[in-house]
Amino acid sequence: MALHIEKIATSKISEVDFSNLKFGQVFTDHMFECDFENGAWQTPKIRPYQALSIDPSAKVFHYGQAVFEGMKAYKDDNDEIWLFRPEQNQERINKSAERLDMPAFPKEYFMEGLNTLLKMDSEWVKKGENNALYIRPFVIATENCVSASSSTNYKFMIICSPVQGYYAGEVKVVFADKYSRAANGGVGFAKAAGNYAASFYPAKLAANDGYQQIVWTDASTHEYLEEAGTMNVFFRINDTLYTAPTSDRILDGVTRKSIIELAKSEDINVEVRKISVKEIVEAAKKGELLEMFGTGTAVVISPISAFSNKGENFDLPKLENSYAALLKKKMTDIQRNLSEDKFGWRVKVQ
Amino acid sequence: MALHIEKIATSKISEVDFSNLKFGQVFTDHMFECDFENGAWQTPKIRPYQALSIDPSAKVFHYGQAVFEGMKAYKDDNDEIWLFRPEQNQERINKSAERLDMPAFPKEYFMEGLNTLLKMDSEWVKKGENNALYIRPFVIATENCVSASSSTNYKFMIICSPVQGYYAGEVKVVFADKYSRAANGGVGFAKAAGNYAASFYPAKLAANDGYQQIVWTDASTHEYLEEAGTMNVFFRINDTLYTAPTSDRILDGVTRKSIIELAKSEDINVEVRKISVKEIVEAAKKGELLEMFGTGTAVVISPISAFSNKGENFDLPKLENSYAALLKKKMTDIQRNLSEDKFGWRVKVQ
Repeated sequence: MALHIEKIATSKISEVDFSNLKFGQVFTDHMFECDFENGAWQTPKIRPYQALSIDPSAKVFHYGQAVFEGMKAYKDDNDEIWLFRPEQNQERINKSAERLDMPAFPKEYFMEGLNTLLKMDSEWVKKGENNALYIRPFVIATENCVSASSSTNYKFMIICSPVQGYYAGEVKVVFADKYSRAANGGVGFAKAAGNYAASFYPAKLAANDGYQQIVWTDASTHEYLEEAGTMNVFFRINDTLYTAPTSDRILDGVTRKSIIELAKSEDINVEVRKISVKEIVEAAKKGELLEMFGTGTAVVISPISAFSNKGENFDLPKLENSYAALLKKKMTDIQRNLSEDKFGWRVKVQ
Repeated sequence: MALHIEKIATSKISEVDFSNLKFGQVFTDHMFECDFENGAWQTPKIRPYQALSIDPSAKVFHYGQAVFEGMKAYKDDNDEIWLFRPEQNQERINKSAERLDMPAFPKEYFMEGLNTLLKMDSEWVKKGENNALYIRPFVIATENCVSASSSTNYKFMIICSPVQGYYAGEVKVVFADKYSRAANGGVGFAKAAGNYAASFYPAKLAANDGYQQIVWTDASTHEYLEEAGTMNVFFRINDTLYTAPTSDRILDGVTRKSIIELAKSEDINVEVRKISVKEIVEAAKKGELLEMFGTGTAVVISPISAFSNKGENFDLPKLENSYAALLKKKMTDIQRNLSEDKFGWRVKVQ
């Protein structure tokens, strides 16, 4: 694969305080970029991280034709860098792109571009259990035209940001009973840019009431629990884990599917089926709802301490040996090359 | 109001073939721009139209936090330039912004910025019944951070594009029965960027089958007709016009509400109520469905010649004296200062 590389003159890494990073605000020295023009992806390039020059009429600004992925890389004690199931993200960004009528990005370009970029910026991946490199592949519509139709031109990019943990403190959630995230036959399953903007206002209202996340319900009836926008959600009733099936409204999370496999391999009973608000409230009242947690690339597993439904508040018990803690440990040990990976999920950057 | 103005050195207008314009691809000499930083809108500016320098991590690229408006200006035979109900667009962009958790843009900045920009680029507004200047106010999230939360920074802009008619030829539509545009409790009523990208793939499938537009139905049942994405839709059964009520799924179109008022003033009976697919199909079979047309800023009124529902095709009659033709003439005469404006809709640029 042809790949044009332009290296930075001087790294900016010495200016970064790695012990005090805010999520997603600091970027590495280089970025990967590939333009779709005249019906084809052009020669990809890696060049110094910098601002883009984009016309104000570019379609991404007007019509939200943009998709993205989130991935993480980890460095082990031998200075090896590891990715987690990168082929899942590569496949999914093309599924998202298809739903938004954007061209698929070639697998080889994605994988080789990512690998080369990570090798060039390897100093930015720090060791230690709280450190990772967050990787953001994305595609934007770059045709300069304010007509509401698919773009002819696109830009695929990968940018990377050193990160520490995603959530600080307790996570309380509220079940949505007015606003919605996704429609049947819509783009909820895709990592489409517009899905996220649509959630910010309801998220602000929830935050004003003291909730860090919303668990979205189906838009038609608000009777079934779906996902949390940046996380899929799991519920533990007695000793069984429940999570909603994926659909055209629910993102097929890589962490979600990995946690299902991991839990099964730990002999935890997992049921993937529709989950009603009613049964969760009833289980909570009977003391049978033992855990709720979110899963996602940024959070890995985020335990939920309380939920609210139609103004009624429920605290979850504090468990000594939670499934969330067990599964998070198993998962991050695989991700960081601290344990055997019998699933074959870990991929070395080399 | 403080407004910083930087004029172009030389106009590029002589390079433009005004008899051969593609919609939304050519822009005037200047653009209006205002940044929201440190919790406040800064001094607005008008400067030469040019590419923006934007970081690849800007939230608009990742989370679709962007809203827009569409307006038109017309030049009459006395070289006066006219806007149509601009306060409606000014109010609506702030309603859209609120739903996407973006700050309201001050009315004075919007109106004075627009007026000044149009005076500076007045040569770009051409006379004649097929000519107009399409005006695109929009707001994008500009914080440089790949964390899925509302931006701290924004950019409000107005760019302008000389245009001729929007649709060429016959418009056939298909009623949606699989894909959806908007959810209850979602952002369908807002001119949110992501709404448009979500429609491109279904629109492509429809285009492959020979349909230029989709009439979206409710996402829950697909039994009720809503809007066409870039147009609201009217149905004439016998001598009554029907259109769906606005809701949190349906855009409150400026042309839509103006056409309702205009029709009433022409003693046409107008009913705003839910419209079922079933009744439209039945009316078509009985020969009572006489017209369908779309309304929107870009199209004004776009007659629909045929529709398809679940594989069944219906042609609409060709009428000598259609409501669509009558209302389009009345509307554009008001817009172009060719008739009295008893509604007070027309606003002179001065």
